[in-house]
Amino acid sequence: MSANILEGALIIGQSGGPSSVINCSAYGVIKAGLDNPHITKVYGAHHGIKGVLNDELMIMDEEDPEELKNMLHTPSSALGSCRYKIADPDDDDTDYKRILEIFKKYNVRYFFYNGGNDSMDTCNKISKYMNRVGYECRVMGVPKTIDNDLAGTDHCPGFASAAKYIATSFMEVSRDCHVYDTGMVTIVECMGRHAGWLTAAAALANLSGDGPDLVYLPERDFDMAQFLADVKRIYAEKKNCLVAVSEGVHYADGTFVSEAKTSGTDGFGHAQLGGLAARLAEVVKAETGAKVRGIELSLLQRCAAHCASGTDIEESYTSGKIAVEAAVSGVTDKMVGFTCTRDGGYHCEYTLFDLSLVANTEKKVPLEWINEAGNGVTQGFIDYALPLIQGETGMVKENGLPRFVKLKKVFAK
Amino acid sequence: MSANILEGALIIGQSGGPSSVINCSAYGVIKAGLDNPHITKVYGAHHGIKGVLNDELMIMDEEDPEELKNMLHTPSSALGSCRYKIADPDDDDTDYKRILEIFKKYNVRYFFYNGGNDSMDTCNKISKYMNRVGYECRVMGVPKTIDNDLAGTDHCPGFASAAKYIATSFMEVSRDCHVYDTGMVTIVECMGRHAGWLTAAAALANLSGDGPDLVYLPERDFDMAQFLADVKRIYAEKKNCLVAVSEGVHYADGTFVSEAKTSGTDGFGHAQLGGLAARLAEVVKAETGAKVRGIELSLLQRCAAHCASGTDIEESYTSGKIAVEAAVSGVTDKMVGFTCTRDGGYHCEYTLFDLSLVANTEKKVPLEWINEAGNGVTQGFIDYALPLIQGETGMVKENGLPRFVKLKKVFAK
Repeated sequence: MSANILEGALIIGQSGGPSSVINCSAYGVIKAGLDNPHITKVYGAHHGIKGVLNDELMIMDEEDPEELKNMLHTPSSALGSCRYKIADPDDDDTDYKRILEIFKKYNVRYFFYNGGNDSMDTCNKISKYMNRVGYECRVMGVPKTIDNDLAGTDHCPGFASAAKYIATSFMEVSRDCHVYDTGMVTIVECMGRHAGWLTAAAALANLSGDGPDLVYLPERDFDMAQFLADVKRIYAEKKNCLVAVSEGVHYADGTFVSEAKTSGTDGFGHAQLGGLAARLAEVVKAETGAKVRGIELSLLQRCAAHCASGTDIEESYTSGKIAVEAAVSGVTDKMVGFTCTRDGGYHCEYTLFDLSLVANTEKKVPLEWINEAGNGVTQGFIDYALPLIQGETGMVKENGLPRFVKLKKVFAK
Repeated sequence: MSANILEGALIIGQSGGPSSVINCSAYGVIKAGLDNPHITKVYGAHHGIKGVLNDELMIMDEEDPEELKNMLHTPSSALGSCRYKIADPDDDDTDYKRILEIFKKYNVRYFFYNGGNDSMDTCNKISKYMNRVGYECRVMGVPKTIDNDLAGTDHCPGFASAAKYIATSFMEVSRDCHVYDTGMVTIVECMGRHAGWLTAAAALANLSGDGPDLVYLPERDFDMAQFLADVKRIYAEKKNCLVAVSEGVHYADGTFVSEAKTSGTDGFGHAQLGGLAARLAEVVKAETGAKVRGIELSLLQRCAAHCASGTDIEESYTSGKIAVEAAVSGVTDKMVGFTCTRDGGYHCEYTLFDLSLVANTEKKVPLEWINEAGNGVTQGFIDYALPLIQGETGMVKENGLPRFVKLKKVFAK
């Protein structure tokens, strides 16, 4: 092992859409980095890889260690995030040369990138480049995505907390929308462009009988006529209908149901979706005459740290810590993930996956976890997701409100 | 006191839009009623006064007392609510005759109505009618409204929990919408037709520096040009702007800003509002070219029991209990409310207000608690609201999710 020892500084960066627990993973990296004798300095990249390119590195050693603990209960990316698609080095190596320059300037030998598919791709490209130019640097992916769509790992840090918030909110909204005897259709839109994990999580609310009547995931083609028939049938039976629908539902030809309302794209070329709930509500109202309400969970579902899963917090923190330990012991070019068993109780093992396997693939909800009618999930999904949402946040309150981390943000010169 | 003793059954009904803690007040009434030797039976009216008119009364004595405790953490109206506007008895006494018939049938001598302004009006009319026809019955209003717009009382049960959820969500969304360095305007719409209490609560998030930059209440006329100038100024300064806006903001001529998108009315003739955030987002996007996101808190803000205020739960429960104690001691035609002092620590006294004073009036945010520019609140509001959101829910979880009350709903024959 001693041959593998590499002394140097560490950079942790955060990328992509944030989550309630991405800071737990980052804190796991930072804490382990600060505690490790071989890591000479811990830097936080300001706004992900852009912080490296712009030489904006926050010295985490300058932060109060007690204050840093509040990262465990602070949503969004405390270091700042970005949506920056790095070029292929064969096409354009400008960014890579600049990254190498910064790595050399600060003697950075450990690079950790905390994000989703695109971030694992960035990680992978940097790792390969550093290898090619002979700069010794250990590069590790620390996953995060509420979308839960990373390959290899059983689940992704961030998913469980969003799932817990979504299921909780569906239980609450279900009680609310049943309060009158006058009938109502409620359509709630959840995030998830291509993978329906978050929308499926709404079905966890059905464990108590307070969940959605209908659940539509993007893994199955959406059929407006069938949707309307489903809603009409439930409404006729119960005089009420609660629907969970993914922002990414699309017709058989691939066009998003929300498409006509879409404009603009994010930095990675994904269409910006939204307004689907309102749109479906209009259609249902016109077709049924029922009172209809559309609700979009919007950003709330990815930042509701006050309703985070204790399991998610613990696993996210540990994955960051394990990434550092693995890198110090000589591992590089891997993503930390989870291998879980559920028979005889939930058990989670931390596992290292090849970055190249993870980058740019999307893991969808298995079709066998969607019911035949395409309007609900099976027990298979419930058994999968339920252990992940166990445990509470343990968030400290101040003035009856969350206490989020306050960083000094001391930048390296 | 003994001359005042009145033996008989009790009816508790719930009316209007629900809240996270309306069931706490109802539980206070039910528990005190079940415990009181002079109260022979406790009935829950199914869907408020409609349950009385339809002879649909649930026997609360048949419920498991342990299970009933879960009402303290169950949002929405567990007994069912209604939006039924009772006629003036001078115009049409049909409903009153029917209510009297039901009261006689079940020997109802105590009637408690749990709701907002309209419910206090219903209460008041029933009380006056029973008095006129010489049927001895004690009628008490038990307030609830997230809108916080009832006259007399310092604040209304339900407001604080919604306020806590709104402030918490603003803190979380603020962290989320600052995550990129690319600039963003986020517009969050809060409930409140004519009173801006809930929207003002967003400003509590500013205590930690994570709150809205701009707050618009319906107490001040909305000026689109000024709004755009405000947003542009903040965005130019900070490359980011978080806005809290009440669904009820209106132009100087009284028309709601959301009006063009409005259709339908609720049972009391109020226009149904919504879609304001999306509408303002469109205007800001067109005017600034910035990335803009509109978020409507919708039903979530009035049913988020998982984020209820401990103070609100306690006060709501106690107000129900005190209503029963007062009625048994001979009081009638009153609403339980709060008289509070905040100098030298928050102190809340339970007070009885005349129903006639409370019915059909709306208490708005005092103009002196709105800043001169009309885009924020003053310290006066913060000092008022902050004590109310203290304390946590104490909600029991099952499977990592809330455990809501399950009523047997045994109906009286």
